Amino acid sequence: MAFELPATSLELRSRVTDGQLELSLVPVALRAPADNEVVVRIEASPINPSDLGLLIGPADISAAVVSGTAASPVVTAPIPAAFMRAMAPRLNESMPVGNEGAGTVVAAGSAAQGLLGKKVAAIGGAMYSQYRIVKAADCLPLPEGATSADGASCFVNPLTALSMVEVMRDEGHTALVHTAAASNLGQMLNRICLSDGVPLVCIVRSEEQAALLRGQGAQYVVDSSAASFRDDLEAALIATGATIAFDAIGGGKLAGQILTAMEVAANKTAKVYSRYGSSTHKQVYIYGGLDMRPTELNRGFGMAWSVGGWLLTPFLVKIGAARAQGLRERVARELKTTFASHYTREISLAEALQPDIINAYNRRATGEKYLINPHKGA
Amino acid sequence: MAFELPATSLELRSRVTDGQLELSLVPVALRAPADNEVVVRIEASPINPSDLGLLIGPADISAAVVSGTAASPVVTAPIPAAFMRAMAPRLNESMPVGNEGAGTVVAAGSAAQGLLGKKVAAIGGAMYSQYRIVKAADCLPLPEGATSADGASCFVNPLTALSMVEVMRDEGHTALVHTAAASNLGQMLNRICLSDGVPLVCIVRSEEQAALLRGQGAQYVVDSSAASFRDDLEAALIATGATIAFDAIGGGKLAGQILTAMEVAANKTAKVYSRYGSSTHKQVYIYGGLDMRPTELNRGFGMAWSVGGWLLTPFLVKIGAARAQGLRERVARELKTTFASHYTREISLAEALQPDIINAYNRRATGEKYLINPHKGA
Repeated sequence: MAFELPATSLELRSRVTDGQLELSLVPVALRAPADNEVVVRIEASPINPSDLGLLIGPADISAAVVSGTAASPVVTAPIPAAFMRAMAPRLNESMPVGNEGAGTVVAAGSAAQGLLGKKVAAIGGAMYSQYRIVKAADCLPLPEGATSADGASCFVNPLTALSMVEVMRDEGHTALVHTAAASNLGQMLNRICLSDGVPLVCIVRSEEQAALLRGQGAQYVVDSSAASFRDDLEAALIATGATIAFDAIGGGKLAGQILTAMEVAANKTAKVYSRYGSSTHKQVYIYGGLDMRPTELNRGFGMAWSVGGWLLTPFLVKIGAARAQGLRERVARELKTTFASHYTREISLAEALQPDIINAYNRRATGEKYLINPHKGA
Repeated sequence: MAFELPATSLELRSRVTDGQLELSLVPVALRAPADNEVVVRIEASPINPSDLGLLIGPADISAAVVSGTAASPVVTAPIPAAFMRAMAPRLNESMPVGNEGAGTVVAAGSAAQGLLGKKVAAIGGAMYSQYRIVKAADCLPLPEGATSADGASCFVNPLTALSMVEVMRDEGHTALVHTAAASNLGQMLNRICLSDGVPLVCIVRSEEQAALLRGQGAQYVVDSSAASFRDDLEAALIATGATIAFDAIGGGKLAGQILTAMEVAANKTAKVYSRYGSSTHKQVYIYGGLDMRPTELNRGFGMAWSVGGWLLTPFLVKIGAARAQGLRERVARELKTTFASHYTREISLAEALQPDIINAYNRRATGEKYLINPHKGA
């Protein structure tokens, strides 16, 4: 093959020391792939909310200090003392970051030659790196004509959105509620629900976001910033009968407000008063933490309720390889339609360490998403 | 039979009108029992926390006003406006109260003559009444020598405590956490766990309560009022491996603190850092609301967690009649040992409507329990 592997690959690393977060770019020696492995030149990797916990965590970026050189900056930022107990398990470990990405296979082991030169997507961490060694079996070859940017978000958002519908069905519900619903993931979920005939209540935080989703065919959109929010939500829940929500916000009163509105909707059809509230089970799964404040539940929604954390990977393990593969295949088939992602900006590894840019992607603003291209400017 | 049924039976009623709670004693015409029914002269009925929601709800008893006569008082108390939305389903309905009780069968239908003159316990509401018509099949005959007071709390506390152990096993846990653990129910649960070899972490709110439980053989008792509470709880969770808690408190930070301590305990054995926290599922079931403030979860315990409401009746339905009957039979066998209850005071129906006494039983103080004897002073 014509391509000569470089000796080293730059990797973005996140390390927590006593009271501080440190981000840096570390050159890592690049080995030859094993028989069943390939070397992917990573060309696009998104910064998802699910990456930010590991990358930034609770550090105060407004107080960040930059040292090092322009090509190899080092950023340090203080971590408030209250969060250090939770940081104990990762203390002093230099951790690579980046759940998923896509790029070109530039070297392949003897059993993986068929992938050489192909564009592939992969998941598994450490994707904020110039090169990443991946098992051939873990690569998802992109369809003809797809770019690395097209394939960068093949896993986390598409599989999460598809899994929400699977969980809904598995747990006996017939309609869904989603928060931060104008996000890339939320727009995907709306397309899935429209295509699969699943009633979806989209909760957004501005009229602009509501208009965006309505423009994409969403039927039940409620704006949590509107004075009529509680009434609007109740009306949407009565219309759809949704009794399960996936919540990306996590903090504040929203999860409890959803449960309360579900309870009001359930009681509309109740024949007699039950002192313990309706017997309809109401479920909120918190899968993100866009609002890092505590979750506040006033429990004014009877006793048949549950709020819990939800993660994609354990769910995929639980449903088994065959069902999970079916979901992946649907993503590949509909990559440029149902599962299309939109990015606010493409940045280099060095730019990912500039405090003003960190502040921008760490804002977790709905609909904004940053894409790292580890070869930009390199 | 020698006993002549009276024409009416006094019933305690709770009614919510616009902004007000009204408690009163209502004479209700007493009919003859059907073939498969009995008339129980109720002699003892506990005021459980699970009764207080229906009986008092969010009313402000400190502003209660009494009218009517000494024998037939009427109490009214304001309900803060914020709670009226939740009261809508019961508005203007005169509701009988009292989940469970015990007494003597004073009349019986043709198919229930075998119960005549027997002491029985029953569950099903409206037990704060002088006489209650019950299906014979729903009566639990008390063992020889047991008084009505002995049998008054046969169902709610004993079956709840037994069910906690059942849920623990059904959901794959091997040890339990319980809050307000010095309550009558908590003391029962401690006796069950000691007898069944289930490690139990008892969370109490004072050193006095801790001493009480230790005196009853409890091995893992932690006092949430102690400065070392978090460390003590972590140590108890590491020692027991408990990953499920039943919480009677509900409000404030306790449920979250339990999850955090479970997460710390789970991470003690983790080999590698997971950005999403441990994969050990951590469960808190809230089955009471001794603290009526919102539940506050800081979510510093990974993603594998769930907090939910828990109610006895749906659980008994779910496990099926045979298993539920097995639990009931154990209660009858161990009524005066494992399932013995202790009462602070026996009160009449009229006393149950005196504001100072309402304040006393509505305090929900751990270890204090009031028993209504509807024939006291009658």
